[in-house]
Amino acid sequence: MKKFVNDPADVLAEALRGIAAAYPDLRVDADNRVILRARPTRAGKVALVSGGGSGHEPLHGGFVGRGMLDAAAAGEVFTSPTPDQVLAATRAVDAGAGVLHIVKNYTGDVLNFEMAAELAAAEGVQVETVVVADDVAVQDSTWTAGRRGTGTTVILEKVVGALAEEGADLAAVAGLARRVAAAGRSMGVALSSCTVPAAGRPTFDLPDDEMEVGVGIHGEPGRSRVGLASAHEIARMLVDPIVHDVGEAVGPAIVMLSGLGGTPLIEQYLLYGEIAPLLAEAGVEVRRVLVGDYITSLDMAGASLTVVKADDEILRLWDAPVVTPGLRWGA
Amino acid sequence: MKKFVNDPADVLAEALRGIAAAYPDLRVDADNRVILRARPTRAGKVALVSGGGSGHEPLHGGFVGRGMLDAAAAGEVFTSPTPDQVLAATRAVDAGAGVLHIVKNYTGDVLNFEMAAELAAAEGVQVETVVVADDVAVQDSTWTAGRRGTGTTVILEKVVGALAEEGADLAAVAGLARRVAAAGRSMGVALSSCTVPAAGRPTFDLPDDEMEVGVGIHGEPGRSRVGLASAHEIARMLVDPIVHDVGEAVGPAIVMLSGLGGTPLIEQYLLYGEIAPLLAEAGVEVRRVLVGDYITSLDMAGASLTVVKADDEILRLWDAPVVTPGLRWGA
Repeated sequence: MKKFVNDPADVLAEALRGIAAAYPDLRVDADNRVILRARPTRAGKVALVSGGGSGHEPLHGGFVGRGMLDAAAAGEVFTSPTPDQVLAATRAVDAGAGVLHIVKNYTGDVLNFEMAAELAAAEGVQVETVVVADDVAVQDSTWTAGRRGTGTTVILEKVVGALAEEGADLAAVAGLARRVAAAGRSMGVALSSCTVPAAGRPTFDLPDDEMEVGVGIHGEPGRSRVGLASAHEIARMLVDPIVHDVGEAVGPAIVMLSGLGGTPLIEQYLLYGEIAPLLAEAGVEVRRVLVGDYITSLDMAGASLTVVKADDEILRLWDAPVVTPGLRWGA
Repeated sequence: MKKFVNDPADVLAEALRGIAAAYPDLRVDADNRVILRARPTRAGKVALVSGGGSGHEPLHGGFVGRGMLDAAAAGEVFTSPTPDQVLAATRAVDAGAGVLHIVKNYTGDVLNFEMAAELAAAEGVQVETVVVADDVAVQDSTWTAGRRGTGTTVILEKVVGALAEEGADLAAVAGLARRVAAAGRSMGVALSSCTVPAAGRPTFDLPDDEMEVGVGIHGEPGRSRVGLASAHEIARMLVDPIVHDVGEAVGPAIVMLSGLGGTPLIEQYLLYGEIAPLLAEAGVEVRRVLVGDYITSLDMAGASLTVVKADDEILRLWDAPVVTPGLRWGA
């Protein structure tokens, strides 16, 4: 295993130490493994809390900051955060207006956030929850009932974070979150496996001439394992299932092509060059684009495509200022 | 070779197509393989042109935009752009106030930029040139006389781009560029080789239990090949040569830890957590930090550390607005 690590058991704690050192606008609660804004939540602002297993950086900790999340609970690599972690995050950021939990649809995440929400409610904190289940690849999966939650989470955190920053109340924030979650679709492809540091060997075997179409962000099996295809063919394997799933003209949209951690930007640019004309052909009017590493799977070579239908309100909120390690503009 | 590619001979052209599709603020001259701002240079503004071999994305094309470069000439992967490409970029962005060429110290780049500068001068375009030679690893190298040019280029393009945006004249812009170039030091380490698409196999062999300390951004040999070390030990191998080379207390600095393309953010965060205390111990007062993929070597696993001594003027220009695919804030 060739990685920048010390003891594989310490990866999360040490990565959090690096985040704390690099970003003075953030604060790390090392005991609870929660990443927070350095400044406390403004009184009366709805707070956004997300989290999940680590290994998908910059998601979620790298999206904490003005205009996006208030806190993120970081589980061990590919492991849900505990209810205690989520509760600690929720308590720390509640400023009287309630807290939105943003949860990717994995069984452990859903259960632990649910338990934390109940504990927080018992303490008088109002909590609403949105579950992202946007991955069109498969219906159920290794750790998931229904669809897995992937890239739409990034766009949701940005858009809904902007609405919360404007002072909207919890019902409005949760309502928008559900609307964005319902408007998003994702599909990924792996050219290689990834290696969980504590395991020390690749999560799955993938021969040199094959790829996994519809892979999950933890290396869960996808729709099919097929021969290594050209970027042009791969673009179609990502675009078609998304467009087919929407089932009607998508119209205006925010699009994200995310590398999975081991794929450099030059390949992502090339792949996006193949994707863009296919989206246009399918009636997706791309209004905003992200290309880069936004939701990763450790060192996996591969990419995922996310398409979120976007009306004028969503686009306006997308353009609002954001200051986080992973997304920053307008301020 | 597991990459998002079609014909390996088309990688550059197709990556440029993706950049054009993803970034409406940029324009790609496909014939000359030049990336430009969509808007022409403001009359009287000094223009900044850089370029070099491709494979280091987002450098340089991803740093074209307001507050940074005006154009970048993209050579084939790991191959210098031709004098004609650089000349085309220079002509396209000159707005009467002259052009600064920012060149990484590789023999082909230096020669071809020099030739382009002479041709441009013959057409009446004033050109000044700054050569970045910041890599402390080795004195000469495969394609370099003297030191190689690496990460300081990113910081130089940002800081000097901000001065040009303010309306400074060519002499002032070139003077600052030389000052930043002289203030920067870099050191890299490779955990794996990279694969040039046209070659189809790794550039060099690196056994599973070894790493290359002081590697060049094209896979050039470094100072030593040693056994795979812990992140803690690797941090020292990056920090010590830089601090030793400066030879005096660094004081205030801008620091960049860049992944080399195949190393995900979680490892970069962890490594930065080891680097930060060593920098503090060595008298480097970290004022600004970048952690992420800024200057890469295709899919190489590894990282490079860059430290640039920064006075108040450099910090002020660093904080000025920038709108590029690779760096964006304040606007």
